[in-house]
Amino acid sequence: MKGSTLLTDLYQLTMVAGYFQEGKSKQRANFDWFFRTLPFGGGFCVLAGLDQLIEYIVNLRFEDVHIRALERLGIFSKETLKKFEGFKFTGDLYAIPEGTVVFPHETLIRVTAPLPEAQMLETTLLNIMNYQTLIATKAARVCLAAEGDPVIEFGMRRAQGPDGAISAARAAFVGGCESTSNVQAGLLYDIPVRGTHAHSWIESFPNELEAFRAYARAFPDSCILLVDTYDTLKSGVPNAIRVGKELEKAGHRFLGIRLDSGDLAYLSKKAREMLDQAGLKNARIVASSELDEWIIESLKKQDAKIDIWGVGTRLVTCWDHPALGGVYKLSAVEENGQMTPKIKVSGDPEKITNPGRNKVVRIFNHNTLMQGDVLLREDEEVDGSKPLTACHPMYPHVCKTYKAPFEGEELLVPIFSNGELVYERPSLMEIQANTFRNMERLEPEYKRLTNPHIYKVSLSEKLNRVKDRLLVMHR
Amino acid sequence: MKGSTLLTDLYQLTMVAGYFQEGKSKQRANFDWFFRTLPFGGGFCVLAGLDQLIEYIVNLRFEDVHIRALERLGIFSKETLKKFEGFKFTGDLYAIPEGTVVFPHETLIRVTAPLPEAQMLETTLLNIMNYQTLIATKAARVCLAAEGDPVIEFGMRRAQGPDGAISAARAAFVGGCESTSNVQAGLLYDIPVRGTHAHSWIESFPNELEAFRAYARAFPDSCILLVDTYDTLKSGVPNAIRVGKELEKAGHRFLGIRLDSGDLAYLSKKAREMLDQAGLKNARIVASSELDEWIIESLKKQDAKIDIWGVGTRLVTCWDHPALGGVYKLSAVEENGQMTPKIKVSGDPEKITNPGRNKVVRIFNHNTLMQGDVLLREDEEVDGSKPLTACHPMYPHVCKTYKAPFEGEELLVPIFSNGELVYERPSLMEIQANTFRNMERLEPEYKRLTNPHIYKVSLSEKLNRVKDRLLVMHR
Repeated sequence: MKGSTLLTDLYQLTMVAGYFQEGKSKQRANFDWFFRTLPFGGGFCVLAGLDQLIEYIVNLRFEDVHIRALERLGIFSKETLKKFEGFKFTGDLYAIPEGTVVFPHETLIRVTAPLPEAQMLETTLLNIMNYQTLIATKAARVCLAAEGDPVIEFGMRRAQGPDGAISAARAAFVGGCESTSNVQAGLLYDIPVRGTHAHSWIESFPNELEAFRAYARAFPDSCILLVDTYDTLKSGVPNAIRVGKELEKAGHRFLGIRLDSGDLAYLSKKAREMLDQAGLKNARIVASSELDEWIIESLKKQDAKIDIWGVGTRLVTCWDHPALGGVYKLSAVEENGQMTPKIKVSGDPEKITNPGRNKVVRIFNHNTLMQGDVLLREDEEVDGSKPLTACHPMYPHVCKTYKAPFEGEELLVPIFSNGELVYERPSLMEIQANTFRNMERLEPEYKRLTNPHIYKVSLSEKLNRVKDRLLVMHR
Repeated sequence: MKGSTLLTDLYQLTMVAGYFQEGKSKQRANFDWFFRTLPFGGGFCVLAGLDQLIEYIVNLRFEDVHIRALERLGIFSKETLKKFEGFKFTGDLYAIPEGTVVFPHETLIRVTAPLPEAQMLETTLLNIMNYQTLIATKAARVCLAAEGDPVIEFGMRRAQGPDGAISAARAAFVGGCESTSNVQAGLLYDIPVRGTHAHSWIESFPNELEAFRAYARAFPDSCILLVDTYDTLKSGVPNAIRVGKELEKAGHRFLGIRLDSGDLAYLSKKAREMLDQAGLKNARIVASSELDEWIIESLKKQDAKIDIWGVGTRLVTCWDHPALGGVYKLSAVEENGQMTPKIKVSGDPEKITNPGRNKVVRIFNHNTLMQGDVLLREDEEVDGSKPLTACHPMYPHVCKTYKAPFEGEELLVPIFSNGELVYERPSLMEIQANTFRNMERLEPEYKRLTNPHIYKVSLSEKLNRVKDRLLVMHR
């Protein structure tokens, strides 16, 4: 099936059809993408996926093949099918750029468009943005734990299908990973690709030493030897040292060894000693084996001698929190030519939405460290020379005042304007640089793996009054 | 990038290149796909994904675009790149058909092929089979909990990227789901597609009643109304009843309502009463909201009046066990013209592999209920008129004897023979029927959600002797 047009929930299509039929094809609406809870018990998220979303929107068309497929479903009338033919996105879309750290309850993407168009984006937007943001966040945590050591993503074999693996490789790079094992992802996105050999390589030779020598012959300048097929310290490391010295003698640089099982703290320290004593001080130790940020943090505390971290299953599945609960909610509808703010009420204050078309301003102190984010109505201006008071998103009696002077930065930038792409899409390398810049501006207390400080996201007093008025109306 | 050829870990390509260089292009090897632990604390897995694997192998070629891409990596010689050009799968592949219930430590796919070809399959095979088997298993558990009620998969918005969603929809159907919300998956695989409308539909109208009426006008014969936008029992259900009766009066059949939040046990019972009192006894109640097998089991126990279950995030992410730890291990290599069994030793008996080329025989009693599985050497015959003794895979002193007479069925069937596809690929509907047949043959004790009985997978005495001999050799 061509393109991703039909890669959506049926209810988007039935709603779009209903809007056509009810004469609501031109009625404009505003939808926000946001999430309510930070994953992994962490203090921040790293936004990712926007470039794929742009790709999807640019190509969003119902071509003949799609129309015929919809016809086969037997629930759409001829007139409705006709209307799908001319469908394209003509609206405005604002988004926070990839690699920005973001927080619960703030508008991350804002779509203003005719109802059917805005509605149509929902499922695919959530699919792309939720997963990539989750992975980029996990990767950023893993990289924090690795304290600057290179982290390689190699989770393809446990990812959710081929494309899950590609999205994961991309988002892991956004979050700070240095490379991936996934060749296709590497080629598609210009991510460095890494990999050496498996246990099966060793077993296919009469013995480990012969297998190591054969691998060194094939890749003399990129040779990392896997040392745990038989016995890491008695066989693997001594054989690797022998081959490593042979390589260096022949004028090559021996890259190092990989540990893939056993007690990584103990084995890495012993292996380091053995390599050093053999004069292979430059040989690096790569470790893998169900690693995540918690295990890496613990290994670091134990002073494990690991230089490069290979992270797979627990990164690409986000094992301890496998979905970001991001939602895409209506926040305003055009009524009598005016955008009217809408609210979704709920018994759970966490689930009440922020009404209207809003923007997000990030407050920095004089050291360019992030102080907090404020949601404001679109037409409000922020003046950093005056103090700014804002309210807790759920408990409006809890207020916070940012002292002047401060720097305020608007986070939402225009991506589509009247359906035209107006955003200069950054390269993946630039996106990763944005992640690093963002992480530097976030104080360490928010980056702790355990019990981080809660970053403040507040509502402007004006926005809070709109919300309050709508809540009263609904009572 | 065309096809999935480069959708693999780099180390597969470096090993393949190494095998080329070492003159091992023709040396045959045997690899097995199996897993060691059942996910979700459950008693079985449902195998899924084989059809996608077949598709991958049939199309596995290095075309010009792939060769040029590999050249750009800068680690392969001209001669090696030349050899990739002629690469295709020429080996034998046996597999257990999709929809079969399977267990730890048994060979689920067996590949015998020249080393580079057998090696090349690893990453993609694991990617496809691990995820789909995991999802099919989760879906089967959810369907068991739903006790025959229809289950709809609608997890696309939380799946790992677009393809994760498609694989999930397919595998969920294999496991027993009745339908999906994913239009593309439905069209690709002939799965029924379901869906109605979201809260945004309601909010885009001046009030709930108008919104319901508009939806009923658009889809009078497939109208399910979402009743929790404002207040389920005070507003949603009464308005839905009003519109339902209007529909029925106009000669249509009102399908029912959907609950998406709140206490589903309480709300469904109250809604049922209200619908019944209004004479809408045929209206069905659909429920969704972070459902999984545990919550469905609990709602069933509370006598919730739910007819159809919508399952999303917790199914497609397999929230409580997001990866199947399936592995692909070398078990034999051709040496001097003979296949020599190989073993991967480990301090952990769970991780020791079964050597050689083996088959799996499933033992049935006279009621065609499954009694246990036995792994045997490929050349062993099973005679159901004589008792069969087999050993525990990790504790060989623990033996089990199947009394005669019994029915023995070989589970591995030929899929590729000398690179030719020899398997008649069943339709997805036939695969689902196979799942249902398998579930019927599995006794209830193995299907319990909590603390299920452990299904026996044993090694034939002959296979056990080979394993023992290799273990002694390695000591």
